[in-house]
Amino acid sequence: MDKTIYLDNAATTFPKPECVYTFMDEFYRNYGVNAGRSGYKLSKKASEIIQETRTELSNLVGVNDQRKIIFTPSATIAINQVLYGLDWSKIRNVYISEFEHNAIARTLHHLSKKFNFKIHFLKFSPDTFEINTKDLAPKLINDKPDLVCISHISNVTGYILPIEQIIEMVSVSSPIILLDCAQSIGLVDIDLSKLDIDFAVFAGHKTLYGPFGVAGIVNNSKKVKLSEFIVGGTGSDSTNLDMPSDGTLRYEAGSYNIQAIAGLNAAIKWIEETKTNVIYRKEKELTDYLVNKLEEIEEIQLYLPKDRDRHIGIVSFNIDGYSSQEVASILDRDFNISVRAGHHCAPYVGRFLNTNEGVVRVSLSYFNDKEDVDILIEALNEILWR
Amino acid sequence: MDKTIYLDNAATTFPKPECVYTFMDEFYRNYGVNAGRSGYKLSKKASEIIQETRTELSNLVGVNDQRKIIFTPSATIAINQVLYGLDWSKIRNVYISEFEHNAIARTLHHLSKKFNFKIHFLKFSPDTFEINTKDLAPKLINDKPDLVCISHISNVTGYILPIEQIIEMVSVSSPIILLDCAQSIGLVDIDLSKLDIDFAVFAGHKTLYGPFGVAGIVNNSKKVKLSEFIVGGTGSDSTNLDMPSDGTLRYEAGSYNIQAIAGLNAAIKWIEETKTNVIYRKEKELTDYLVNKLEEIEEIQLYLPKDRDRHIGIVSFNIDGYSSQEVASILDRDFNISVRAGHHCAPYVGRFLNTNEGVVRVSLSYFNDKEDVDILIEALNEILWR
Repeated sequence: MDKTIYLDNAATTFPKPECVYTFMDEFYRNYGVNAGRSGYKLSKKASEIIQETRTELSNLVGVNDQRKIIFTPSATIAINQVLYGLDWSKIRNVYISEFEHNAIARTLHHLSKKFNFKIHFLKFSPDTFEINTKDLAPKLINDKPDLVCISHISNVTGYILPIEQIIEMVSVSSPIILLDCAQSIGLVDIDLSKLDIDFAVFAGHKTLYGPFGVAGIVNNSKKVKLSEFIVGGTGSDSTNLDMPSDGTLRYEAGSYNIQAIAGLNAAIKWIEETKTNVIYRKEKELTDYLVNKLEEIEEIQLYLPKDRDRHIGIVSFNIDGYSSQEVASILDRDFNISVRAGHHCAPYVGRFLNTNEGVVRVSLSYFNDKEDVDILIEALNEILWR
Repeated sequence: MDKTIYLDNAATTFPKPECVYTFMDEFYRNYGVNAGRSGYKLSKKASEIIQETRTELSNLVGVNDQRKIIFTPSATIAINQVLYGLDWSKIRNVYISEFEHNAIARTLHHLSKKFNFKIHFLKFSPDTFEINTKDLAPKLINDKPDLVCISHISNVTGYILPIEQIIEMVSVSSPIILLDCAQSIGLVDIDLSKLDIDFAVFAGHKTLYGPFGVAGIVNNSKKVKLSEFIVGGTGSDSTNLDMPSDGTLRYEAGSYNIQAIAGLNAAIKWIEETKTNVIYRKEKELTDYLVNKLEEIEEIQLYLPKDRDRHIGIVSFNIDGYSSQEVASILDRDFNISVRAGHHCAPYVGRFLNTNEGVVRVSLSYFNDKEDVDILIEALNEILWR
C-alpha cells in the first residue's frame, strides 16, 4: 500500500510529534499509577505531571494560574460540564453561531427540553463570513444575551471567528461566554487574560497535538461557579457524600488519565519550543497554497471567508457533479488520501453554506507539506478528467 | 532509589502486561485517527479495533453480543451514565451495600437532591461479612426495591459480594440492577447471561489490566432504555440535534480514545491467553499468603470476611498505635512500598468496619509475588520493633 496522505487533522492531528508518543509510553511505563489518591512517591510523581501540565496550559492561554485548568476526558465532556453546570433558572437568551459543533448544539437542544430559554443565531454573511452587525445590534437590545457560545475556529470552514468583535457586541448585558477552542489552542495565539471569556474549552488531541483522553476547561469566570456534573470519587474527603465545594477536584471525579496527560505535557512543551506563531505561519502558508491550487480548478466550489487572514488549516469544498461522500471515497480508494465528507458534526453549517449534502473537508497540520497538497490536487484533477 | 514494591493495584493495576504498552503505542502511531467519523482506510481500521474490543469484552462476560458494550472514558462516567439515564419518576426505593464506592454513593446522593427516593442498605454482618437476610427479607416486602446498586468486589476489603444471593432476594419486585465490576471483571469469572443484571460497569485500567481512558457499561437490560447523558457529536446524522435513538452511539458522544481501546484490546487478549482462573488462582494464593503472614502479627487488625473463598486481592488492616496514613507514609518513605491509606472513596465502609480513621490497603495483582509480600511483612515488623 502506498503511503497514506492524511488530511483529516481537524478530526484529530495525526501523526503527533515524536516526543508525544515517546514520553507518553515512557511515563506510563514508569509512573502509570493513580494520581491524587495516595501519598507514595510514584503517585506524587504522577500528580506532579498533572500540576505541571495545568501550569503549562494556563501559561499558553495567558491566565497563568494552574488552578483555572479543569481536566476532562474529552472536549465534549468539557462542554457538557460547562453547560450542565450553569444555573438555567437565570438564562433566557442564548446566542450561538451557525458554526457550532454538536457538542454545543445538541447539548443546548437537550437542555432546551428541560429549561425555558431561546436560542438565537449570531448571523454571518454567507458571502463574506462577516458578522451581520446591523441586524444584530437591535436584537441584542431586545433579547439581551445571558449566554453566548461560540467557536473560535470553525471545524468545517477554518474560519477564525471575530471573537473580540462578538465579545464587544454582546457585552451590553455581560453574558456568560463559552468559547469552543477545540480547533484553535496551540495554533493561534490566545490571551484569555485580555478577553472577557468565562470558559474556554480545549481538546488535547487536536491543535494541541496531544493524545485522545485529555481535554478540559479554562475556568476564567469571575461571575459563575459551575455546579458539579460528573459525580464520584475524588480521592479526598471520601466520607463526604458531596463533591468538593471548591477547586478543580469538584469537576474531576474519577481517575486521572495520567498517560494522556503526560502526552499532552510533551505536546505543549513541543508547541512552546516550536512556537505557536511558527506553527501558525507554516500551516497558514500551506493553507494558502492549497486554496490557490483549488481555486485554479473550475469545477470546485470553495467555502471561504472573504478576509483570508481569518482562515487557517481547514478548507472545505464541493465538486460539480459529485457528492462530498463520493469525492472522499474516491480519494481514499484510488489515491490513499484521507479526507472527511459530510456535515462534520456541525448541524447548521450546511444551511449557512447552502449545501444539503455536506462538504469535502481537507484539514492540515504542522506535519503536512506541499507535496501532500500536490498529490491531492493531482488526484482531484484526475477524478475530473475521468 | 531501591525498586518500588507497588501494592496499590486496586487503584490501578501497575505494571500492565508488556503487550498492552507495546500494542497501545504501536496502534496509536499507525492508526491514531478519529474512528467512526470517516470512511477512509485508517479510520476503518480504528473502527475495527473498537468493534473487536467490544466483541472480546462481550465474550469475556458471557453476553456474546458486541452491541451490548458501551464505552465511556471512566467507570465513574459509566456509573453516572447509568444512574442519570434512569427514569427517576419510577424509582422510590434504592438498595445499596455499605461497600459502595463514591461513584455510586455520591451520584445517588446528588440525585436524591432532585428526585424523591429513599436509599436503603443491604446490611452485612461486620463479623462475618455475611448478608443479614433475616432483617432484609421483611424490609424488601415493605420497601420494594426499584433499583439495586452493588459492588461485585469491595475495593476496600476484597470481599466478593454474594451477588447471586442478593439478586435472588431482591427479585421480589424485579428491580433494575447495577453491578459495579470495577474490581472484578478479568479477575473472577462472570457470566452475565446467567445473572439477572441490567447494567454491569467495568473499568479498563483495573482488573482488566488495560490503560486509563477506557471503561464502560455492559448493557444487558431488557426492561430499561437509558436516556442519553453526555451529549454531542457522534459522527453520524450530524444535522439531527437529537442523539441517535438507538445503538451504543447514543451513549458515546465525542471522539473515541482509540489508543486506550487498543490497550484494552491487548489486555483482554492477554487475559484470554493467561486465563481468568489462572490469574485468579495466582492472586488468591498470594492473597492467602499475605493474610497468613499478617495474622501472625499480633498488633495488626485485619478486616476480612469469614468465608475466605469470598476474598481476593485486597487486604485491609490497621496497626495498633498507628493511623493508617502513618503506616502508609512510613512504608513509602523508608521501604519504597506503595500502599494506600484512608477511606478509599468508599464512604460507608469505615462505619461498617467501625474505624473512623480509615484502613491501610494492600492490593495485589498478577504481577506481584511472594517476595513483595515478604518485603512488606518485614517492613511492618521493623516498624513495630522500632
